[in-house]
Amino acid sequence: MIDVQNSADHRGIAIQNVGINDIHLPFFIRKKGGGFLQVAATMRFTVSLPKEYKGTHMSRFIEILNDYALQPIAEEEMSAILEAALMRLNAASATLKIKFKYFVEKVAPVSGKRSLIDLDCSFFGEKQANAPMDFTLGVNVPFTSLCPCSREISEYGAHNQRSVCRLKLQFDNDTECIYIEDLTALIEKEASSPLYSLLKREDEKFVTEAAYNNPKFVEDVLRDVVIALRTLPGLKKFSVVCENFESIHNHNAYASHEETLA
Amino acid sequence: MIDVQNSADHRGIAIQNVGINDIHLPFFIRKKGGGFLQVAATMRFTVSLPKEYKGTHMSRFIEILNDYALQPIAEEEMSAILEAALMRLNAASATLKIKFKYFVEKVAPVSGKRSLIDLDCSFFGEKQANAPMDFTLGVNVPFTSLCPCSREISEYGAHNQRSVCRLKLQFDNDTECIYIEDLTALIEKEASSPLYSLLKREDEKFVTEAAYNNPKFVEDVLRDVVIALRTLPGLKKFSVVCENFESIHNHNAYASHEETLA
Amino acid sequence: MIDVQNSADHRGIAIQNVGINDIHLPFFIRKKGGGFLQVAATMRFTVSLPKEYKGTHMSRFIEILNDYALQPIAEEEMSAILEAALMRLNAASATLKIKFKYFVEKVAPVSGKRSLIDLDCSFFGEKQANAPMDFTLGVNVPFTSLCPCSREISEYGAHNQRSVCRLKLQFDNDTECIYIEDLTALIEKEASSPLYSLLKREDEKFVTEAAYNNPKFVEDVLRDVVIALRTLPGLKKFSVVCENFESIHNHNAYASHEETLA
Amino acid sequence: MIDVQNSADHRGIAIQNVGINDIHLPFFIRKKGGGFLQVAATMRFTVSLPKEYKGTHMSRFIEILNDYALQPIAEEEMSAILEAALMRLNAASATLKIKFKYFVEKVAPVSGKRSLIDLDCSFFGEKQANAPMDFTLGVNVPFTSLCPCSREISEYGAHNQRSVCRLKLQFDNDTECIYIEDLTALIEKEASSPLYSLLKREDEKFVTEAAYNNPKFVEDVLRDVVIALRTLPGLKKFSVVCENFESIHNHNAYASHEETLA
Repeated sequence: MIDVQNSADHRGIAIQNVGINDIHLPFFIRKKGGGFLQVAATMRFTVSLPKEYKGTHMSRFIEILNDYALQPIAEEEMSAILEAALMRLNAASATLKIKFKYFVEKVAPVSGKRSLIDLDCSFFGEKQANAPMDFTLGVNVPFTSLCPCSREISEYGAHNQRSVCRLKLQFDNDTECIYIEDLTALIEKEASSPLYSLLKREDEKFVTEAAYNNPKFVEDVLRDVVIALRTLPGLKKFSVVCENFESIHNHNAYASHEETLA
Repeated sequence: MIDVQNSADHRGIAIQNVGINDIHLPFFIRKKGGGFLQVAATMRFTVSLPKEYKGTHMSRFIEILNDYALQPIAEEEMSAILEAALMRLNAASATLKIKFKYFVEKVAPVSGKRSLIDLDCSFFGEKQANAPMDFTLGVNVPFTSLCPCSREISEYGAHNQRSVCRLKLQFDNDTECIYIEDLTALIEKEASSPLYSLLKREDEKFVTEAAYNNPKFVEDVLRDVVIALRTLPGLKKFSVVCENFESIHNHNAYASHEETLA
Repeated sequence: MIDVQNSADHRGIAIQNVGINDIHLPFFIRKKGGGFLQVAATMRFTVSLPKEYKGTHMSRFIEILNDYALQPIAEEEMSAILEAALMRLNAASATLKIKFKYFVEKVAPVSGKRSLIDLDCSFFGEKQANAPMDFTLGVNVPFTSLCPCSREISEYGAHNQRSVCRLKLQFDNDTECIYIEDLTALIEKEASSPLYSLLKREDEKFVTEAAYNNPKFVEDVLRDVVIALRTLPGLKKFSVVCENFESIHNHNAYASHEETLA
Repeated sequence: MIDVQNSADHRGIAIQNVGINDIHLPFFIRKKGGGFLQVAATMRFTVSLPKEYKGTHMSRFIEILNDYALQPIAEEEMSAILEAALMRLNAASATLKIKFKYFVEKVAPVSGKRSLIDLDCSFFGEKQANAPMDFTLGVNVPFTSLCPCSREISEYGAHNQRSVCRLKLQFDNDTECIYIEDLTALIEKEASSPLYSLLKREDEKFVTEAAYNNPKFVEDVLRDVVIALRTLPGLKKFSVVCENFESIHNHNAYASHEETLA
């Protein structure tokens, strides 16, 4: 049967990325403290295509992923998947992005009640032939923000709201990768208050007062997160987005920042 | 050219709804106080199909809508569109749902500054041959809610958040249809505070204190909205959903209720 | 500490549904053939609230769910969760909806290659005190549709596209619940062709020709699914939506139908 | 009343972007051939914040936008809005992104019937003080793709599907900006077939056969779009994403590419 994809192309255009998108597969993510969480990942998986070929072979992307489905996935496996793509698709470069919902256990501040909170996370890997993979960890941490201006100018009360901090982190290749649990705790320390799924009345009193005692603009959270990230061993590049879903507006307060560390 | 849709079907199944979905067209919505707002509507448009026919004629739905695109649309035009569908597609019943983003002008409570707020709205019409159309107006009103429990148990502060009230309203056929502007004002009166796009500092102080002075659970807002709706002249049926995007949780507080009025 | 929720309410409105929405938790779903798939479920969990009380107790919903998180969930557990809500929240009725992405293994028609396909699924339970739960299973099955009109009137080719069949099924309470895997296979038989994640060239030839040999309007798929569902033992109520993401339009062909069986 | 935002900050972090996000306002977009389309735009509007200040003034973003709401918006107005932000917020740089749904008229290939098709579009402007604005036009053009491999290896038929081409274009500052209508026509020429909202049977035959006669992989469409874009006068930078919503899979074929022109 003819292999149309393999036929010659004469347009002279080497395509930077070609592959599959919005494919869903289950994987296991290693939890801090042992054990795994199974996740339904959404993926984009591409390779570069030399100018000489008409097309890539889409089914091979699935064959490669199938070998890893329902298995643990982390930096090492991402690199192996990309290496397999470089080999089996004769490519000079390959990328893999996986997005998944992860759960972190939270302990209520007074009652000590335990509950799970969901975080949107991602792994992104990019690999050239014969080079180590560039790996980016993405974690979105939700939190409470309380407005310093509203608190200052009002006789009582202060507007506050759910917010989110979206991180993308790139570490040196020999750094031990940080756990999502630890990263979440790091970010939550810079919020007016962390979020919890389960709060009893004594906890609700605690987080209400804690947020009131710790008012922060979207700019404050962003700056304090930047300072916290700069201390992370091995971090070489990061971007941060903070967004407050303002309780007094139908739009959001937004701040973003990125840095490459020396 | 053969008309495959028009061929006989022998499975004996009269289909309740068949047509087009997720079609986008621009229309004009009449504003309170005169003038029109142009909107990009997303639509579902269906008819019933008798058991004798293999298929409906999808292009006729578009032809009917095209006659109304870039024109004002309200109850009268919805009814005319459905009547056209009944005639041109030989159907016993037809439905049309249009969803659009509408803008309402808000006046800041102290500074008097004006700004626009966006509301997700919908019209739904359902018509049998030789009967008046049943019409449902949908309006989603965003607002601020402040938690009575949090306020009561805390030394200072109270968690508050953006919330939304989703209404579906069905009026008697001879009722003059209410303006979205008036409905929005009606709902906002039952919130801890309305939302605004533009608030200067004196306004921010006002809405912060107003919300603190007016704490409401999701249940309170829902009940007060129910009481307010019961007074609307000509209203015969309604449903209400209230949802608070809790500032202390990563999930929402939710309440829903529906009534048929005597 | 005062229990504000528990205070008396004098508005005289019994709320039909109040609780939490958009909460995410991991559960296990039993697979056909043994074993479990872990899923990240999105949930809505509500109870009715008598007119005498100001509010429900939101944290108890989480406490109830926590007892079932990271455990298998099916009809029996749904019923137990609702029963717990009725008891612990003193409610007359309760509802629980969970949505999750499920994976079904598919075997390519010629090469026999195995791959996983993702389906959006849901469980919905509704329970009155001292009555059995009403349970609704939701499964969305993607498939290929090929247009009979396009095929008939064209010299060669025929437009085809990805489509989806959205089912909601309610069975008699003593019926053994059908597996998602079996339901998927039942629906796929009525499509122009099933979908697969992994197809080699010989498979691609097979599905292309199979779809061309089996042209179906959205009305055809819907009617054939209705006929297939009517044969399901114990099914007492169903709704079906079929939607084709038309390859020649930027909108969709749509059909819906529901039946209560004798 | 104290201006908390204006107070000194000692963390030493100049924030790259801070402002408002997900704000909705109506604007007018000039159509080719005269006249305007009113659109409901979704916007992100930011400035840089010097390290000396605690916060920016969020209400000023709204005040600036309000002067332009319900007015025409294009490159010139984007630049004026950004200039106003630089001045009123004392900023060194500012960005504005607006996204909106635009409608283009299509003429059916045989019947000549006219209908509107919706396109997701965006304007992005970025401005430093005392420098011209960098402007990026975004247009997403939907189209039909038909698979060359499927056609080649099958006895009859070929799988085809709805696809989309997502463009981001940056022109030299003195280039007359291209109309969305012309850009759409340029891209559609490289598809297996354009899409239409309204097709009569003679048109459906035409587009079915046209697509069959013009099979293209996602790689083919991308390469041909790249070649077409390279001919656009004044274009200095572009990115293209092509994505096929495969009719035989539940995932998409994807290709992306970007170039800076000499």
